[in-house]
Formats: sequence, structure tokens, C-alpha cells
Amino acid sequence: MRGWQFTTTHAPLQMVEKEDPKAQEGYVVIKTGAVGICHSDVGALESEEWMSIMNVPIIMGHENAGTIIEVGPGVVDFKVGDRVAICPTGPSGMAPGYAYDGGFGTRIHAPASDLVHVPDELSIKEAASATDAGMTSYHALFTAGQAKPGMKIALIGIGGLGQFALQAAKAEGIEDIYAVDTSDKAQALAREIGAKDVVSNITELAEVGLDLVVDFAGFDITTSEALKTVRPGGTVVLVGMGKLYTTIDVTDFITKNKKLLSSVGGDKEDIAAIYELMKDGRLTPKLHETTFENIPEAIKELEDGKVQGRLVAIYPDEA
Amino acid sequence: MRGWQFTTTHAPLQMVEKEDPKAQEGYVVIKTGAVGICHSDVGALESEEWMSIMNVPIIMGHENAGTIIEVGPGVVDFKVGDRVAICPTGPSGMAPGYAYDGGFGTRIHAPASDLVHVPDELSIKEAASATDAGMTSYHALFTAGQAKPGMKIALIGIGGLGQFALQAAKAEGIEDIYAVDTSDKAQALAREIGAKDVVSNITELAEVGLDLVVDFAGFDITTSEALKTVRPGGTVVLVGMGKLYTTIDVTDFITKNKKLLSSVGGDKEDIAAIYELMKDGRLTPKLHETTFENIPEAIKELEDGKVQGRLVAIYPDEA
Repeated sequence: MRGWQFTTTHAPLQMVEKEDPKAQEGYVVIKTGAVGICHSDVGALESEEWMSIMNVPIIMGHENAGTIIEVGPGVVDFKVGDRVAICPTGPSGMAPGYAYDGGFGTRIHAPASDLVHVPDELSIKEAASATDAGMTSYHALFTAGQAKPGMKIALIGIGGLGQFALQAAKAEGIEDIYAVDTSDKAQALAREIGAKDVVSNITELAEVGLDLVVDFAGFDITTSEALKTVRPGGTVVLVGMGKLYTTIDVTDFITKNKKLLSSVGGDKEDIAAIYELMKDGRLTPKLHETTFENIPEAIKELEDGKVQGRLVAIYPDEA
Repeated sequence: MRGWQFTTTHAPLQMVEKEDPKAQEGYVVIKTGAVGICHSDVGALESEEWMSIMNVPIIMGHENAGTIIEVGPGVVDFKVGDRVAICPTGPSGMAPGYAYDGGFGTRIHAPASDLVHVPDELSIKEAASATDAGMTSYHALFTAGQAKPGMKIALIGIGGLGQFALQAAKAEGIEDIYAVDTSDKAQALAREIGAKDVVSNITELAEVGLDLVVDFAGFDITTSEALKTVRPGGTVVLVGMGKLYTTIDVTDFITKNKKLLSSVGGDKEDIAAIYELMKDGRLTPKLHETTFENIPEAIKELEDGKVQGRLVAIYPDEA
């Protein structure tokens, strides 16, 4: 197998040749079909703080989908030929590309416990694109926030996560979905996706009687104002870590019986739920495609802000 | 009927004679049997901020139990002779003693929607004593916090609410219940009730792996330290309003997937659940008894810190 290997911060990824993995007990070997590339990949290359969670040297890539080519002993739910994606925050507790070699390589030796079946209607590149930002934003809105049609919901921060959440909310039939962002570009995008209203500041929605706010920004003021703005009994889900601390008004929080929840990552059920929306065509992520050979340059383009949509590297057999 | 009437802050309660109420549609008339007296009654007499929620002139008393002597049209779940308590934060949204004349008077005209049946095994004075602090602390621990045997739980602040919660936790079979208070007296009481361990600071329980912390103090640092101390995925329920703001560590909150909930008041189900514990003798509130005639003096004793246990005024027929 071949793969782009990370050794340390500030050093370029290196193409390496390695022995093909053999499927161990409870594991499968996946022929990588597509791998998403994410801002956290830029982070790992540029910021030393990532070193503590990188099992170096390691082939990066945490947004993976492909086809099973070998199944280890004890694996019952998957067989050779199955198209699968890997939940990066699955039950094994080990993330591909961090704990073990990921999809920047041609083969992945993954624990079967973390796999999700890819429906026939989906391409492998679509499947890969939903495993991280898709899963994380879906989890925040639907699993943590328990979003349902009929609820009045606002999303703060229409970046990668917020965009996906807004699309998923529309796809799930949530009509009263509001978008909050200070950027003109993000506001325009939110309007295009179909937000009911688009504002710069959550407090402008005070009259709406919001049931739920998901704060993808987390800039302290966004969270404290979101808590003040939700209706009595309402919930704020905090996802973004824009600031290290947030200060909340205790009297309002208690007397109006509000909740502050957090959401990090997601699970296999989130990915499966997104695939249901994608296979019906209710959700169509915008992809920016590249190739396996081009991964290091694509990461640079992402860093330079030249990428629109989810960046996915596609292997020759899936192109 | 007769009752102790409140007209304005800093003025003594006055004994007044009024026409007996007639039961209107959906209402009952209760012959008051016992009424709890609470620090918020001291508050109403001493602090002007209470005036905004007092429908003056009004007969105070929000912790009520007695016997139904008349039933209005449309009331189906209650009949004359039934022994009942009034949930002060019930479905009607109106609190006795604030919105309408309460149990500092000999008769109460109460909405049937807010009533709870008092089991035969309970005295009326016991029933009255559980309707406010009992309900509020039970709601925080069991309804908001979803406390269950097998969980590791800490209570911050072993005052009126915390004591009751600690007793109720023990009565519900929760063994791993920890108490946090800086006062020697409160610590001694917590040990006596049977807390597994008693500490001055929640951070001393960092190794326990707490599932739930209920913060009855709410002194900012108590809440922020509670959030840092609960295990990943754990919950803090904020009840006390010791400070106006609290500041939380966002990174820890999100990456460890924690929750901050609030709890205010309670509901009829909380009161009914407490009565179940009381009728089996699993929960025995310590009462400090007084009489209807003595209510103004008893309020003064409460203010002066001379009362141990829940203060309850008992009417002659229930004495």
C-alpha cells in the first residue's frame, strides 16, 4: 500500500510504501475509495498542539469511505465487497488518521465496530464527505438538540458545520430555521439554502420564541445572548470553541428554566441518518474534488481559502 | 373566614375578616389544615422587589394542605372531604399567597388543576411541609437531574433544599451521595443524614467520577468547579442564585460533552413522589410547629434564625 505520512508539525507529508495490512480479529481491511480533507488536517500540519493526539508516524485522513477487501475473525455485520464509511468518533474510541493509519493511504485497517454501511444510491465520495462536519453538525442539531419539525430553531455561525446543519434541517422538514452570521457571504448562502430569516445577531430573534439555538461559533457573547434569547424552557447547544470561557446570566437561566448542552463529534447513527437524507436527494453536499496524488497541494488550497464546498480526494477506481 | 393579610412591604400582616369563598367552575374551597412558612415569606415582608408578584391586598401562605369543603362545577378528580395539598407552581400558573389568597387564611379558593391528593398515612402538617422546599429540591435532583440508584451524585449547599435532597436521595436508595458545604454545622448534618462523604469544596471529589452535581448554592465558583469536576458526559443542575453570573470553561464543557441544566419549582408529580416516600416512613421531615394565630411571630422567629426544621402553622382541627 501507499500513503501520505505525517511525522511532525511543520514538515511536509511524505509518500511512503508500506506492507498491506492483514485483517485482525474484529477488524476489516478497506480499499480506500475517497477521503475528505478538513481544516483539522491543516491544523495538524501547522500547530504543535496536535502532536499529542497523533500516533506518529501516521498516515492521516479521518473522513473515510471505501470497499471491504478482507474481513478478520469475529466480524459478523460486514463482508468482503461491502461499501462502508468509518465513524471517526465511533465505539472503538480510536480515530483513523490519528490513532491508526487513515484514508490518505490506499488501504485502511479499521475496527468493524466503527463502520457504517453506505447505501447503494450514494457514491463513495459523497459517503466520505459526510463523516466529519456532516456527522458533527447533524449530531449537534438532532441528537444533542433533539430538533424536530414544528420547532423554532436558530443556528449561529454559517460556516462548514452551520451550512450542513441548515441544509439538514431543511431536508428534515424544519421550516422555522433561522440563521445568524455577521458575514455577508455567509448570510447570502443561508438565504440561498432557505433560512426563514437571516440576521447578524441572535438578539434580533428575541420575538421569535426560539426553542433551540445551536451555537457553532462559541464566541462567549454568542452563547450568553443565545441563552437569553431562547424561550423559557429552551435549549442552547454549544459546539464552537471560539472563546475559552463563556459567562451566563444565572437568574434568567434558572427562573426561565433553560438548558445549556454541549456537542462534540457524533456517532454511527448520525452518519446513517445523513445517508438516508442524501440517498433520497433531500441533501446534496457541495463537493470540491481532488485526487489521492494531489492531497498535499489540496491541503494547501484549503489553507489558502481557495476551496468551496467539502474537499474530497477520490481514488482512481471511484473517480 | 379570617386570614393574615399583606398590603405592602415593611408593614405588618393584619388579621382580616372576609366573606367565605364560593367554589367557582374548576375550583374547590379548602378548609386550611396547615400552612408552611418559608424564607420567601420573610422576603415578601422585608424586600420591595416582591411587590411586583403580590396581588395586593392578599392573604399570604404558599405551602398549603387541608380538606375540601366545596367543589365547583366541572371538577371531577376531587370531592368534598378529600385531603389535598396545593402545588404552588402547578398547571394553573397561579401561586397561592401571591396570585390568590393562600393558607395564612382559614379558607382557600384553589384551582383543582393544582391539587395533589394527600395519602391517608400522612398528617396534614407533613403534607403542607413538603409542597415548596421539598418539591423544589426533589424536582432538581430527580426530575431535572434524573437521579437514580447506582449514580454518583454530589449536592452543593446543605441548607433547606440540600438537606431535603440528601434525605430524599437516601430514601430512594442512592448510596453514592456526596455533600459539599463550607459550614461545619451543615457538614455535621450531612454526615448525620448519611452522606457517603462530606467535603468543603467540590473539587475534592474529582476522583469520584460524579455523574451529577446539583448546585443549591450557585455561587459562580461552585457551578464552574462543579462542571469541571463531573465526569465526561456528566450533568450539573443549577438551582441556587447566589451570584448573578457564572463563567464556564468552554473547552472542558464541549470536549467532555457536559450539560448544564436549571431547575426552578416543581410539579404535582414531585409532590406525589415525596408523599410516597413519607408514607412509607422512608422520609421524615423535621417540623417546627406553630399555630395560625401565631403566624406573624413565627415569621419573625424564622427571620431571627430561631427555627430548626420546616416551620408549619397548624390549624386547630389538625393539631
